[in-house]
Amino acid sequence: MGTIGDLGEFALIATLTRRLPQGPAVLLGPGDDAAVIGAPDGRVVATTDVLVEGRHFRRDWSGPYDIGRKAAAQNLADVVAMGARPTALLVGFAAPPATDVEWAERLYDGLAHECRAAGASVAGGDVVAAPEVTLAVTALGDLGGAPPLTRAGARPGDAVAVRGRLGFAAAGLALLAAGRDGPAELTEAHRRPRPPYAAGAEARAAGATALLDVSDGLVQDLGHIAAASGVRVDVESAAVPVPAVLGPDGLRHALTGGEDHAFAGTFPAGAVLPPSWTRIGTVTEGTGVRVDGREPPPGAWDHFPT
Amino acid sequence: MGTIGDLGEFALIATLTRRLPQGPAVLLGPGDDAAVIGAPDGRVVATTDVLVEGRHFRRDWSGPYDIGRKAAAQNLADVVAMGARPTALLVGFAAPPATDVEWAERLYDGLAHECRAAGASVAGGDVVAAPEVTLAVTALGDLGGAPPLTRAGARPGDAVAVRGRLGFAAAGLALLAAGRDGPAELTEAHRRPRPPYAAGAEARAAGATALLDVSDGLVQDLGHIAAASGVRVDVESAAVPVPAVLGPDGLRHALTGGEDHAFAGTFPAGAVLPPSWTRIGTVTEGTGVRVDGREPPPGAWDHFPT
Repeated sequence: MGTIGDLGEFALIATLTRRLPQGPAVLLGPGDDAAVIGAPDGRVVATTDVLVEGRHFRRDWSGPYDIGRKAAAQNLADVVAMGARPTALLVGFAAPPATDVEWAERLYDGLAHECRAAGASVAGGDVVAAPEVTLAVTALGDLGGAPPLTRAGARPGDAVAVRGRLGFAAAGLALLAAGRDGPAELTEAHRRPRPPYAAGAEARAAGATALLDVSDGLVQDLGHIAAASGVRVDVESAAVPVPAVLGPDGLRHALTGGEDHAFAGTFPAGAVLPPSWTRIGTVTEGTGVRVDGREPPPGAWDHFPT
Repeated sequence: MGTIGDLGEFALIATLTRRLPQGPAVLLGPGDDAAVIGAPDGRVVATTDVLVEGRHFRRDWSGPYDIGRKAAAQNLADVVAMGARPTALLVGFAAPPATDVEWAERLYDGLAHECRAAGASVAGGDVVAAPEVTLAVTALGDLGGAPPLTRAGARPGDAVAVRGRLGFAAAGLALLAAGRDGPAELTEAHRRPRPPYAAGAEARAAGATALLDVSDGLVQDLGHIAAASGVRVDVESAAVPVPAVLGPDGLRHALTGGEDHAFAGTFPAGAVLPPSWTRIGTVTEGTGVRVDGREPPPGAWDHFPT
């Protein structure tokens, strides 16, 4: 099928755009100076993440379809973590001109399919030449008239609960780094996180006081709630879900592994949580995060190490 | 001041965020899973561009402040080209860990100052490590109850007009490539385009039927209006503003040079244009663009060459 450099900018955009069905929130899709997206709430939730080859994914460990799904998922999860409904994605795609057109098509299929899973669509973007593949994804969402679920609303006495897999992506990455390609449940979790997009609506219905998506690791992300809310978060490690497949390092992966895009929230003491949520601790007065009453071990995911 | 790698992700974000004053449209700024931006119109205009070091800018030709202003300007211009008012920017910043903190601070000063010039602010973003500096900028805007000014509304009989400098950035780039650093009016135009942000409101007030920002070169961008509207655009080269500073290749630069982020629009035949706009041609039946009745020369700006 040739390379994207042979195809050229405008033909590449046309080829990729044909693979992007537009959802009802997209009032004007690709092809003009900008897209126009419905924002019926009168506010728009917006978030951007950049994924760089060799740092956030490796083309020898992940295929383009999975890279696309992952890039979309981590941004859609951020929108859901505000208690909003995802509406649209904008995708900046930088790649070497020698990249196969088919590789790019599969990438955009992944982006489009993950969007569909979250009720959104890819409404626009940009393609440019660059030495490595870089994806810059912006996700937009609508709050539907409700206040955003920030990190700042947790209060002493609240319950702390999680929804979604913890530690799977980190365990999968550790396996791939050790040259192993299984168990598939773990390596696939690294390649393609599956954020439970229903979590935002569930958390809101249960009266959540704070919500975020677990991208840096549970302990570190709960630390963001603690800092923003001016509280302490006490985690009981025995309550953290650690399935046997995670192996002997399971608890460590579950506490510090990022990129599963599970959701963590705080809820009033008497709140009735849906069965898909697991209570793992309590909000108290103080600062920081404690695991079984102690300072947690270091080892979170730093996106910008030396 | 050290490098951004020494500082680490979270301290870098805190350092940069302190330099970003938040405008009234930003309801929730940096620090949570996502920002919340006002969209009083019930729709949001959204556009993304990726700028890659060595391709869209060179650090030996442009300082960080100018790179920031340019990255913001080209996205804000896309919002204005839809007839919308810019509200917010999200910035994905990828850079080598060895980058000086001060360099990053000046970059964000440039982003913030260009935003202020357009009435917007930097409401969020992401920082990641990468081998080269890459900027992924998303701009959002509000239509204020009016329909978007797309590329598809031009009709035979309309006047074609431009607002802003044409060919300056291309002439400046040619000078820098030839090892010259002047005239400053041209080299500065390459380093820091100055889109006339008032052009969107002016065009709307004058009844514009189509509008876009000239990023790829006047002839090529008018071709986008011709294709989207199903019309032909006839340009009279003698009417195109070509100041003497552009030199002997002035007309070529003005017709094919991109990245000044001037605006080109079409207007009903009887429309009264503000004095800042220059009529340069007419919309007729047919396809494509003609300059003085002939096929224009090739030489537009391709963002994705082989």
